[in-house]
Amino acid sequence: MNQQDNRYVVGIDIGGQTSKIGVVRSDGYIAGRSTIRTDGYGPDASSFVSDLASAVKKLLGECGDPLVEGVGVGAPNANYFSGCIVNAPNISWASGTSVPLAQMLSAALGGVKVSLTNDANAAAIGEMAYGAARGMKDFIVITLGTGLGSGIVSGGQLMYGHDGHAGELGHVCINHHDDARLCGCGKRGCLEAYASSTGVARTAREWLNDRPEDPSPLRYVEHLNSKAVYEAAVMGDPLANEIFQYTGKLLGRAFADFVAFSSPEAIILFGGLARAGELLRKPIVESMEKNLLNIWKGKIKVLFSTLPESDAAILGASALGWNNLLSNNDQ
Amino acid sequence: MNQQDNRYVVGIDIGGQTSKIGVVRSDGYIAGRSTIRTDGYGPDASSFVSDLASAVKKLLGECGDPLVEGVGVGAPNANYFSGCIVNAPNISWASGTSVPLAQMLSAALGGVKVSLTNDANAAAIGEMAYGAARGMKDFIVITLGTGLGSGIVSGGQLMYGHDGHAGELGHVCINHHDDARLCGCGKRGCLEAYASSTGVARTAREWLNDRPEDPSPLRYVEHLNSKAVYEAAVMGDPLANEIFQYTGKLLGRAFADFVAFSSPEAIILFGGLARAGELLRKPIVESMEKNLLNIWKGKIKVLFSTLPESDAAILGASALGWNNLLSNNDQ
Repeated sequence: MNQQDNRYVVGIDIGGQTSKIGVVRSDGYIAGRSTIRTDGYGPDASSFVSDLASAVKKLLGECGDPLVEGVGVGAPNANYFSGCIVNAPNISWASGTSVPLAQMLSAALGGVKVSLTNDANAAAIGEMAYGAARGMKDFIVITLGTGLGSGIVSGGQLMYGHDGHAGELGHVCINHHDDARLCGCGKRGCLEAYASSTGVARTAREWLNDRPEDPSPLRYVEHLNSKAVYEAAVMGDPLANEIFQYTGKLLGRAFADFVAFSSPEAIILFGGLARAGELLRKPIVESMEKNLLNIWKGKIKVLFSTLPESDAAILGASALGWNNLLSNNDQ
Repeated sequence: MNQQDNRYVVGIDIGGQTSKIGVVRSDGYIAGRSTIRTDGYGPDASSFVSDLASAVKKLLGECGDPLVEGVGVGAPNANYFSGCIVNAPNISWASGTSVPLAQMLSAALGGVKVSLTNDANAAAIGEMAYGAARGMKDFIVITLGTGLGSGIVSGGQLMYGHDGHAGELGHVCINHHDDARLCGCGKRGCLEAYASSTGVARTAREWLNDRPEDPSPLRYVEHLNSKAVYEAAVMGDPLANEIFQYTGKLLGRAFADFVAFSSPEAIILFGGLARAGELLRKPIVESMEKNLLNIWKGKIKVLFSTLPESDAAILGASALGWNNLLSNNDQ
């Protein structure tokens, strides 16, 4: 990463409803922010890209038109190699089609380099540039939200694999039985179906149903989501606590396998479910340690993201804009 | 890799009983070979290193003293980062101690660069330099011998992890039940305890015991090893065939998880058990395909090593000697 404080990148986080833009300094300071709608456009991406480019130029103007080293974009179903958003069902202009967003935005911004990746990869390089992984060359970021995503850094390089799809750790199989949970991807037994916000809520629904004798305040909450389970656990509900124990145990087992693969210095937890803090981290570490080879016992850190939550997506995306943070940006 | 045909590296494969030396040209041609004993030395490594250096010099002399770009060494329990063999129980001079072999051999050879890694990593870069992975930047080599080892290449770089221990894929857990097979590492349920030469023999012993009603020629073989199971399967024994189906199913499931991690172009099978050929590859592919995410179905190759078996270890080790095959040689 560039050490000079007067150089900047632009980070853009494209979500289903809004897209957030930030002008970010090399130390992670956000000099300016703005937001545009992602929805409300037709099936053609060009109007959106044109509005996005205008918003970027306007924001840069408000920040005193600093020298911009590059633009990084985080988006669903984004492929780093092709620079395309490939069939993002929740975005009208990218549903059922492939949009060469990096190329289009670069053209609209007068040729500045635009790099694109998915949210989990953006989170990983964000942690490396400004967060919990600063100074690390080998780590894994696990994003625990609606699903379970991952960004893997090995030898200082974000792992893309031969097709740009590396790091689909939400879809390793943790249960090969025929009655394993069905995952959104169509497979059964995926880690994500158990260890994510929705996975925690599914566990709660299953257990409340299977164990009618267990009293639990969860029986009376209106929206049975992972936040409700967390709140019940904090209030001392044994069932809710057991759900976090179970979720952590499954994650810890999977983490031990991930360590056997890439031997990271740390695994970093990011996203909504990570807000459960020690309630989740403690059983993860216990279970991971139990399953690690001796050479790794007591040596692998399990950390929380240190990116400020509201800016994490912008920071992550922006980190992709630095030329010399990752040498494979030159590929 | 260097494209000139007049440049050479030295490859050394240190085994428990003998160490093999080869002088290897950039196209994989082996200009000369020799062998020295590894055993018969005391607890001090210096006599062995001195004899090894003499043998290397003698062999180079016989080959017309070509320019040598580097020396690559494959050895058990070798750490690439430290250049040390760390407690190799089967080698008298490296048992219970750490031997800085790369440094010692380099000094004995007048300062030529010596790089050291374990057998599975050597196999991976051997395949990349001269074998089935030529031209690939993302692949995994799985060595199926007494144990299950792995060498992982991502973005053209051998994956070492933060401590040099990446790629212990024999020790991902495929069975978390209390009665899962005990592995040599002390854990239960490791992939290696099921899918390796010894794993196949264990399956045979278990099944012969558990299914006394099944007739099988395996009941009458003197040494019930994976070769005997292979021979029975080829002769049409249903039980032996089922053992390979089972072994392949377990490997295929694990491979699908490995793909979710690093998205390789190919997974390459290497080592004794890989000699079972299609008997093993077919159930692996079937099971892997069933467990892959849709984005990868039909796209991941499962290949066999193309290194000539008798020279594979020397070739693999030698590939580590090339300066520009792997840029992380410069780390």
